[in-house]
Amino acid sequence: MGLPMSIYRASFLLFCWTITALTIHPQQAQKSPQAEIRAVLNAQVAAWNGGNLEVFMEGYWRSAELTFFSGDRKFSGWQAMLERYRKTYQGEGQAMGMLEFSELDIDLLSPSSALVRGRWKLTMPGGNQPGGLYTLIFRRFKNGWKIVHDHTSAKG
Amino acid sequence: MGLPMSIYRASFLLFCWTITALTIHPQQAQKSPQAEIRAVLNAQVAAWNGGNLEVFMEGYWRSAELTFFSGDRKFSGWQAMLERYRKTYQGEGQAMGMLEFSELDIDLLSPSSALVRGRWKLTMPGGNQPGGLYTLIFRRFKNGWKIVHDHTSAKG
Repeated sequence: MGLPMSIYRASFLLFCWTITALTIHPQQAQKSPQAEIRAVLNAQVAAWNGGNLEVFMEGYWRSAELTFFSGDRKFSGWQAMLERYRKTYQGEGQAMGMLEFSELDIDLLSPSSALVRGRWKLTMPGGNQPGGLYTLIFRRFKNGWKIVHDHTSAKG
Repeated sequence: MGLPMSIYRASFLLFCWTITALTIHPQQAQKSPQAEIRAVLNAQVAAWNGGNLEVFMEGYWRSAELTFFSGDRKFSGWQAMLERYRKTYQGEGQAMGMLEFSELDIDLLSPSSALVRGRWKLTMPGGNQPGGLYTLIFRRFKNGWKIVHDHTSAKG
């Protein structure tokens, strides 16, 4: 005689659950914050190069508190930023060019905030290549990592 | 008869300790992170305007990992940054000018990291006033809050 069959069955189920939790779950776990942030930036580059500013802007926090610093000019708010991009890159005689990011450095400051440093380069239809550096602050929201502050600078 | 005198004495001491902990201690508590960071920036401005670059540099993380972005140029390391400042502002025929910070916005990202946004202006002896914006990332170390990344930009 041994223990009641139900004990063996319960142990077996618990064993299966444990193995599942320890091995399969981590493999199916969410991507690292760094990988998630990189994916946001890759999606932005793809959207820009596809001429889709609205999708590009999905990387930014949709808030009036979003801030964008460029040179000595401050811009606040998601809507204002979209309109600025439209005017600068989609106005008559304007072009968006091909955007590239490089020298990316993603540094977690907390489980829900990250500092991202990188270099940007645009290749315009005429061959002109404006470029420079950016500092981004990302925060993790329910709908994913979003840029809450963007400081971009170009050749002085 | 009541309880032994020692009980009353112990209760009295405990009462005093509790009142002290609840009322006096918070008043003597450390400054808020925002106040501490503001103090670092104020000390930097005072040091700059006193012509003391070494004291100004005490606001920065003394590490090879300190980063400074200006325009499209990246600088790494505390020592390199000090030397760049010396060359730019203390070389022959150079002047440091009077530094002012304004529009300061200190945003805690975690108990040990903060995003600081602000505007800088230098008033040079000749009357020229270069200026622009900065984004700073502060981290809290054992020896206080220090800038670990500085992105500064000027009029384009």
